[in-house]
Amino acid sequence: MKYSYVSHLECPKCHEHYSVDEVSQLCRCGAPLLVRYDLKAANSAFKKEEVKIRKNSLWRYHELLPVKNEENIVSLDEGMTPLTHLKKLGEQYSLTNLYIKDEGIIPTGSFKTRGASVGVSKAKEIGVKQLAMPTNGNAGAAWALYAAKAGIKATIVMPLDAPNITRKEVAVSGADLYLVNGLISDAGKIVGKLIAEQGIYDASTLKEPYRIEGKKTMGYEILEQFNWQIPDVILYPTGGGVGIIGIYKALLELKVMGWIEADKFPRLVAVQAEGCAPIVRAWQEGKKESVFWENSKTNAFGINVPKALGDFLVLEAINKTNGCAIAISEENISKAQKQVAELEGNFICPEGAATFAAARILREKDWIKEEETVVCLNTGAGIKYPETVETNNVTLLQPDDVIQS
Amino acid sequence: MKYSYVSHLECPKCHEHYSVDEVSQLCRCGAPLLVRYDLKAANSAFKKEEVKIRKNSLWRYHELLPVKNEENIVSLDEGMTPLTHLKKLGEQYSLTNLYIKDEGIIPTGSFKTRGASVGVSKAKEIGVKQLAMPTNGNAGAAWALYAAKAGIKATIVMPLDAPNITRKEVAVSGADLYLVNGLISDAGKIVGKLIAEQGIYDASTLKEPYRIEGKKTMGYEILEQFNWQIPDVILYPTGGGVGIIGIYKALLELKVMGWIEADKFPRLVAVQAEGCAPIVRAWQEGKKESVFWENSKTNAFGINVPKALGDFLVLEAINKTNGCAIAISEENISKAQKQVAELEGNFICPEGAATFAAARILREKDWIKEEETVVCLNTGAGIKYPETVETNNVTLLQPDDVIQS
Repeated sequence: MKYSYVSHLECPKCHEHYSVDEVSQLCRCGAPLLVRYDLKAANSAFKKEEVKIRKNSLWRYHELLPVKNEENIVSLDEGMTPLTHLKKLGEQYSLTNLYIKDEGIIPTGSFKTRGASVGVSKAKEIGVKQLAMPTNGNAGAAWALYAAKAGIKATIVMPLDAPNITRKEVAVSGADLYLVNGLISDAGKIVGKLIAEQGIYDASTLKEPYRIEGKKTMGYEILEQFNWQIPDVILYPTGGGVGIIGIYKALLELKVMGWIEADKFPRLVAVQAEGCAPIVRAWQEGKKESVFWENSKTNAFGINVPKALGDFLVLEAINKTNGCAIAISEENISKAQKQVAELEGNFICPEGAATFAAARILREKDWIKEEETVVCLNTGAGIKYPETVETNNVTLLQPDDVIQS
Repeated sequence: MKYSYVSHLECPKCHEHYSVDEVSQLCRCGAPLLVRYDLKAANSAFKKEEVKIRKNSLWRYHELLPVKNEENIVSLDEGMTPLTHLKKLGEQYSLTNLYIKDEGIIPTGSFKTRGASVGVSKAKEIGVKQLAMPTNGNAGAAWALYAAKAGIKATIVMPLDAPNITRKEVAVSGADLYLVNGLISDAGKIVGKLIAEQGIYDASTLKEPYRIEGKKTMGYEILEQFNWQIPDVILYPTGGGVGIIGIYKALLELKVMGWIEADKFPRLVAVQAEGCAPIVRAWQEGKKESVFWENSKTNAFGINVPKALGDFLVLEAINKTNGCAIAISEENISKAQKQVAELEGNFICPEGAATFAAARILREKDWIKEEETVVCLNTGAGIKYPETVETNNVTLLQPDDVIQS
């Protein structure tokens, strides 16, 4: 019984192989690398019924994760986030089986934690002492805190406009924090120079292969929480797209393992903001890759990614599952955020709110049927986005006042 | 098999009984009421081994919770928060078995969620249509969001100085929010007038009996997560004290059920801030009740409670378990918060940080022994307290800059 059945890294473009025992970043051809496992051996060693009584952590799937030695795991017991049936909102949307997978209920308050736990653990295993990354905020916060726990020095560069709370998270971790008067692409250039000069580990999205492995556990969990029954539709807010790539990878692995029916996949939906919708445009035009989105702008900061390195993998995931891509207006994002809180009590982030607006619109177009099982992925806690809620008109009382009603 | 084995309400002072099927607030004698169960019947119906495979939610203990009909449950799948061994911090503190119970990893980002889920569910069951409460922030946020889900109208009154994010949470829920230019005691007076005039349900701390029942599940979970082995010490940041009262109640119930050893209890420690330490003073003076703490002040806003209604129950819990009470300086609170993040990756709230400082000090005094199992309760997510982290000196780069190191 091995702790992990990881076998090697593979390039999805040129199919070159690399070792998982030393540092690898991108493939020589420039494409991101994917982690491969000996799924046959894993399947004989490990049954889905065993998972149920394991610890509430994404590491319950350790056989299908890339860390070979349990001692290298850097964990805050992240994962097994709630999958909750939203009855009242479902009535409103005419969706009888509407669910939220709430990734706000996790250490650091965002789904980026999954990538950080697996990515930092593997970095520790292959001997990384120092890493650097550009971030729109949440990923940097998560990696900084997990790197601190691992004893790895982290350098984080984020736009001045990134959510203030993520700046605080990086600072409290003791990581080196830099702000840049520009976009994540500018932060990326600064990190690129640092890495080239100093040989530091590049933890940028998809430039290290292990973050996807953390993200794919969302797929495992959704399936496990549905008792290995496949939902019809999963909607995912798509910036860099690592989550949707990861969920699709999880489905493919579970299919090989025989843990899910071979002939059915959930339709994967990439949800973007109208102000930054490169994947949506590429999907509409039937392209295999996206084009850089000029002057991108959205309050859903986490999906403000004008050109994703893994765009071709996102488009493949959508197309192979008969999914689609859809862009949502800022107005509809905020309306959905308010609706979810008022009816269901979940204070979600704007990126997550976009998926609810998308579910409503796709239901109206009858692309989703009333009885279908639909999962909206909320990628972060609303408490990380205080500026999305207006409180300017709240009444201020003096101690002797009386509430008039 | 009943869903709940709740039997009645009992006054811990005058022992009067009340029904759980109608609205009850305080006892006629002015004391808070406690919920009683038919533990013997529960014990024959429900075994601790069954709990393990139930859903990750505090409602896994539904037989020992006060809601009779499952349909009344208002849940965001809260509970089963991480209990994590902190090896590096433990080395620093000479505590081999130091654990964090991290209540930041829960909907609404604080332990107040437990009280809200159980309290709102029971309010729904007994027909409440409208509730009101004063709050230092987190409780109001949680009750507002759960009330929204339940379809109960909520009126929340909080000090102007309460954490800004909690104001946003109340607003997004659609509840009526009022700020008061004063303390929680002033908010309490305003709520008191509203309730007297309009016959609204009073959801103030301990003025409704069911919040404790939510909080006690922290005790159940700690025991379950230790495989029903009893830890030596549990440290709890104490404001209103409902958590420590709840944990002690849980221990007493589990003892009657025979789920834990009859002759051993963990020592319960009430941790307060030096600027507001009424329980500590009362404990030091051997008193059964505390005295109002004048001009209370601490950055750990949640434990700024000058006089708790349940102080006598907190003191009883400490004394009966051979525990103690300790006050922590603001400087030690912030030092501990930084230490936990830098060594372990948990961004905790100042209230939670106080318990770590307390563990360190009690270890230094040898009140805690090196090998003892120690649980520090972090009551909320650090991301709700951005102002506790300093980021004024962060370097701002221009897009063409290079990081000098």
